[in-house]
Amino acid sequence: MSDNLQGAELLQFLQESSVEEIMAALKDIHPADILDALDDYTGDPIPFLSKLPIEILAEIIEEAEEEDKSEIFDLFSLDQKKEIISEMASDELVDLLENIDPEEVTDLIDSLDAEDAQNVKDLMRYDSETAGGIMATEFVTVKDHMTVRETLEYLQKYGEEAETLSYLYVLDENGVLKGVVSLKDIVIHKFTDAIAPLINASVISVKAGLDQEEVAQTIQKYGFTSIPVVDEQNKMLGIITADDLLDVVVDESTEDFEKMAAIAHSEGDYLDTGVFALARRRIFWLLFLMVSATFTSVIIQNYESALASVVILTAFIPMLMDTGGNAGSQSATLIIRGMALGEISIQDYFAVVFKEVRVSIIVGVVLAVVNFFRIWAFHHDIILALTVSLALIFTIILAKTVGATLPIVARKLKIDPAIMAAPVITTIVDALSLIVYFKLALVLYLPKGLPG
Amino acid sequence: MSDNLQGAELLQFLQESSVEEIMAALKDIHPADILDALDDYTGDPIPFLSKLPIEILAEIIEEAEEEDKSEIFDLFSLDQKKEIISEMASDELVDLLENIDPEEVTDLIDSLDAEDAQNVKDLMRYDSETAGGIMATEFVTVKDHMTVRETLEYLQKYGEEAETLSYLYVLDENGVLKGVVSLKDIVIHKFTDAIAPLINASVISVKAGLDQEEVAQTIQKYGFTSIPVVDEQNKMLGIITADDLLDVVVDESTEDFEKMAAIAHSEGDYLDTGVFALARRRIFWLLFLMVSATFTSVIIQNYESALASVVILTAFIPMLMDTGGNAGSQSATLIIRGMALGEISIQDYFAVVFKEVRVSIIVGVVLAVVNFFRIWAFHHDIILALTVSLALIFTIILAKTVGATLPIVARKLKIDPAIMAAPVITTIVDALSLIVYFKLALVLYLPKGLPG
Repeated sequence: MSDNLQGAELLQFLQESSVEEIMAALKDIHPADILDALDDYTGDPIPFLSKLPIEILAEIIEEAEEEDKSEIFDLFSLDQKKEIISEMASDELVDLLENIDPEEVTDLIDSLDAEDAQNVKDLMRYDSETAGGIMATEFVTVKDHMTVRETLEYLQKYGEEAETLSYLYVLDENGVLKGVVSLKDIVIHKFTDAIAPLINASVISVKAGLDQEEVAQTIQKYGFTSIPVVDEQNKMLGIITADDLLDVVVDESTEDFEKMAAIAHSEGDYLDTGVFALARRRIFWLLFLMVSATFTSVIIQNYESALASVVILTAFIPMLMDTGGNAGSQSATLIIRGMALGEISIQDYFAVVFKEVRVSIIVGVVLAVVNFFRIWAFHHDIILALTVSLALIFTIILAKTVGATLPIVARKLKIDPAIMAAPVITTIVDALSLIVYFKLALVLYLPKGLPG
Repeated sequence: MSDNLQGAELLQFLQESSVEEIMAALKDIHPADILDALDDYTGDPIPFLSKLPIEILAEIIEEAEEEDKSEIFDLFSLDQKKEIISEMASDELVDLLENIDPEEVTDLIDSLDAEDAQNVKDLMRYDSETAGGIMATEFVTVKDHMTVRETLEYLQKYGEEAETLSYLYVLDENGVLKGVVSLKDIVIHKFTDAIAPLINASVISVKAGLDQEEVAQTIQKYGFTSIPVVDEQNKMLGIITADDLLDVVVDESTEDFEKMAAIAHSEGDYLDTGVFALARRRIFWLLFLMVSATFTSVIIQNYESALASVVILTAFIPMLMDTGGNAGSQSATLIIRGMALGEISIQDYFAVVFKEVRVSIIVGVVLAVVNFFRIWAFHHDIILALTVSLALIFTIILAKTVGATLPIVARKLKIDPAIMAAPVITTIVDALSLIVYFKLALVLYLPKGLPG
């Protein structure tokens, strides 16, 4: 995939080469590959990390996973740390500062030059999961009276620090965002052309308080590679680039996968996480759900006498519960994912439930018919076949209604819909479907003399 | 979020304005917003779509969801279609052609100029979920002897058609990728500077056959906004941009969410999909899992006599099964997601299972202790408490081992690991845990005279 030095080879090169040799080879070394090599290395990495120039160290920390950033950073002395942060992009620096010893933060920020320090302080005020929390402040503004040549000369002077030059922004005297021009448009036009006709005055931007998931939806909808961030007065504050959002989208999906499987979210690769940490993330929900499942025991005990006389009824409890759980989980998953992607909102509640009820009738009838003939064929007991199959239809309708309702209710209550997934739905549907099953059994078996 | 015309307002404007008025306002109209407006519109959109210039129509189709592209395209006559495709980027055109009437495809391709036609034919040979299938062929190459000014003059001539100019590529006489230079680096240097020192000779690229998920992982790892695609001989074939991968990452996650909830994958928003289509996507797996759950009935029937004499045993079946299902689903989800993100591979099998067994012992013991005292307190039957709690530990160990094993086995067998999620794990673990439960009950209750 690349001609770069990677893995063990890269590690060996860094360990055995002089600073001069490393500097000469720097073009063949990507910070992301150094990170990969560090991941597999158990010794003290400082001897070879210190051979690298500060910009590369800054890049390594920028590209590290959220939870590894501070760990690598803390390997260095305070003076080295100050040098490293002076090379970091504002958005990355804020991510780092949020994860290190708070006592050190003030000291570090004060070492920056006044403007950068203010920038960082401003950025730290935003919630880290909003547009303001992930934006960078290094963007480039141009004036609408410039020519292509003037713009290029301006970039030669002021372009280097920018997070990206793909888009240049036009602001008025108050800093209000008035237009955007793409660098591509600039460079395909003649040096003497004015840039004014290339400027698009209706800029699509996001407000600083917008949730990062919605920023990703906006940038994805329009197919942008970056998007400007503004305050309530439309003053430009920063930019967010599509590659940063790739991380956001992946992280948000992972969090949803975990919540939907009743696992507490935490950063960190599976293989790097300890056994106790993994166990801790799972025990709470399992305990909660186990205790909730007590209701099913209580229900079964209430019908103990019925069960004692028709033990065969027990045989279908697992099938009913599994099918109910699966049917509910299908609905909950589609609704949770639809809400995460912005396709379904709270206002769609009635449309969703109406749709799920209709779907569940179709699905329920098909499954019940198959089930009816299967039980009839094997057990030659038409009442049993009827009891189980009717219970199955009710179970599926209940499961899909509960599965569609709970995620939307959660969103309404400002709880993450993802926790209303399979495990919670299953626990609720189990209890409901057992009641339906036993009630039906009592009614249908009664003429045959089942003790109530 | 934007000053653009949107929604009903945009629709009204398009319907009531003349072609001239629309042309004048074009800068305030984004194709993605026209798409949104179309989504809510039930009438015939052709009257106002025809007022739009061909480039905008091409962009609308480019930005439409996979399943809507051909629907919009088919609104137009063959001649209009030919005009539209001449304005489309190669990667987008291939996506479209894969979804329309095959008889029309040849006709349409033949209408392109010879080079574009060949490009499209070449691209259509790649699997649509690989790097080759999502790349665009519109990239710009430069020569290493150029100066900044020469490069910019070159872009003024040839840059317009490119998918992105963020990176320019250096190829040798055989088309082999030799270097890359970012446009940002070009524009921040003086006009008279040579570009040679700015060229990075160790380019990170992906092979055309690489799965799109792995392309996303590569681009995310390095934080690129685009990546070149090469063939086995390292000849450059095209580029992939980060915003296209945002779609890939979102789609792949959605597919995994659906598979993990036993739903057949299909494109299309939930709210736009019909009831029968939704039911069809769910019935197969529900039926399959329902019939598989028959094993649990058979097991219970085998222990019918035991159950008849100790009916209270039945009361804990749902709790055991739910906890086993949840525990297994936690493991399966972490492993499936870890594999999707490239963090866990087949080689990690033993490490993963060893870890899951240790985690499950911790989790199992904690849950069993809580459960033991709960049952003892409520039922005053220490044998019952012991039977259920021991069964619970075994169930959790079994569930987590099966949950960790099946996704990795699936990957080994080249099946998507995501189908080995909660529903399948639950069905298997249910059967296993019932056997353990009843065996334990027989052994522990035997001294008290339970009929075997």
